[in-house]
Amino acid sequence: MRYKIEIEYDGTNLVGWQKQREGDSVQSLLSQAIKDFCGEDAEVFGAGRTDAGVHAIAQTAHFDISKEVEPFKLREGLNYYLRTYDAPVSVLTAEQVSADFHSRFSAQSRSYIYRILNRRAPAVLEKNRVWWVPVSLDVEKMKEGAKYLIGHHDFTSFRAAECQALSPMKTLDKIEIEQCGDEIKFYVEAKSFLYHQVRNIVGTLKMVGDGHLKPEDVKEILEAKDRKKAGPTAPACGLYFYHVKY
Amino acid sequence: MRYKIEIEYDGTNLVGWQKQREGDSVQSLLSQAIKDFCGEDAEVFGAGRTDAGVHAIAQTAHFDISKEVEPFKLREGLNYYLRTYDAPVSVLTAEQVSADFHSRFSAQSRSYIYRILNRRAPAVLEKNRVWWVPVSLDVEKMKEGAKYLIGHHDFTSFRAAECQALSPMKTLDKIEIEQCGDEIKFYVEAKSFLYHQVRNIVGTLKMVGDGHLKPEDVKEILEAKDRKKAGPTAPACGLYFYHVKY
Repeated sequence: MRYKIEIEYDGTNLVGWQKQREGDSVQSLLSQAIKDFCGEDAEVFGAGRTDAGVHAIAQTAHFDISKEVEPFKLREGLNYYLRTYDAPVSVLTAEQVSADFHSRFSAQSRSYIYRILNRRAPAVLEKNRVWWVPVSLDVEKMKEGAKYLIGHHDFTSFRAAECQALSPMKTLDKIEIEQCGDEIKFYVEAKSFLYHQVRNIVGTLKMVGDGHLKPEDVKEILEAKDRKKAGPTAPACGLYFYHVKY
Repeated sequence: MRYKIEIEYDGTNLVGWQKQREGDSVQSLLSQAIKDFCGEDAEVFGAGRTDAGVHAIAQTAHFDISKEVEPFKLREGLNYYLRTYDAPVSVLTAEQVSADFHSRFSAQSRSYIYRILNRRAPAVLEKNRVWWVPVSLDVEKMKEGAKYLIGHHDFTSFRAAECQALSPMKTLDKIEIEQCGDEIKFYVEAKSFLYHQVRNIVGTLKMVGDGHLKPEDVKEILEAKDRKKAGPTAPACGLYFYHVKY
């Protein structure tokens, strides 16, 4: 039986989505909970493999177990075990799906949220939940710069060296930037992303916001197809895997 | 010179506002930062003395130092030292005030926010930031029950045994309850509060929400003037000192 789950996690003390030799990963914690719940070893496949420190509001995953179980009981059971490990992972929903559903390959689009706290005073209530930027950012300029990134482009300038994608061509469907009080929120959507693409985009737009770059520079950076031209990678702690559409 | 500051804090690992023999308090951390900033020993007076685990979005405090300093530099200096201690305290604003200003006695009203996360899945991103209530709460019934508490009443039923106030009479100006997704937010305002009054009110209204009490029971509980009639004290982690009006 194949089950699909939506998961919330606080990535602060995790090594990321993927199992590593050391440290807790979302994948290893979920596998452990499945094992404790029904005694089966299941590999858990996620829609997006987030890095250490990156959070999820609703990551989606699937796994196979031979046992048929009511989705409600599955969710309650997994959450019961996750709580006993004090894991920063919570199962929001669970449902049984057909064997041809794949959390990663069936995804039509993925969206991420990136949060900046833009104020002089350091982040305390939102520590590890936002990127604290003490210099004032011009949101209108950032919006202007972001426009150049929408659509089908070669995103080499925003791609981490370790990226394993076959092609740097991606279609960015949406970048919305909204300011609410001293928080600046980026909403980014695409079928799929290159490694560090969202964080590299935010790191570059931040430099537009603080005046180090002009909005038009984003166009040039994109066209240069050179990672060295773009801004630094924004910190992991501000990034949230938000939603997957199937 | 007297300075007024607004402070944000994450109360999770603090012993509360007030200095204790052991553990970090907001007061002791601020005194330490003032000492390191200008070499002076200052007592810091807060508008509200919050308990261990209670947070602040904008607590207000004042203190006297002999040195005259630009408020901007004071805020930056205090935040610099607070960051070196890795303190969960951040100074949002600072200003110089006249000697007759008193953070506690000049306050015209105080407001608190209480946050409940009402869903089956445990809180992970908002762990220690909300009261996680897995049973479904009826917000309309809670609003109905809350109405009986507005106005001038004897709040003995909602007062902790350790409360040192001379009188149990208080005027509750406002209780607003709003639901946003799976979060239920209480906004409570009064000139001043009894010890644990907000948490005891939320603990009682939660019992209205889950059906253990009827909305009308809140009136009876209030009139009974008996702490044993009301619900249990809601956990500290959902409570935020929100604002002071002067």
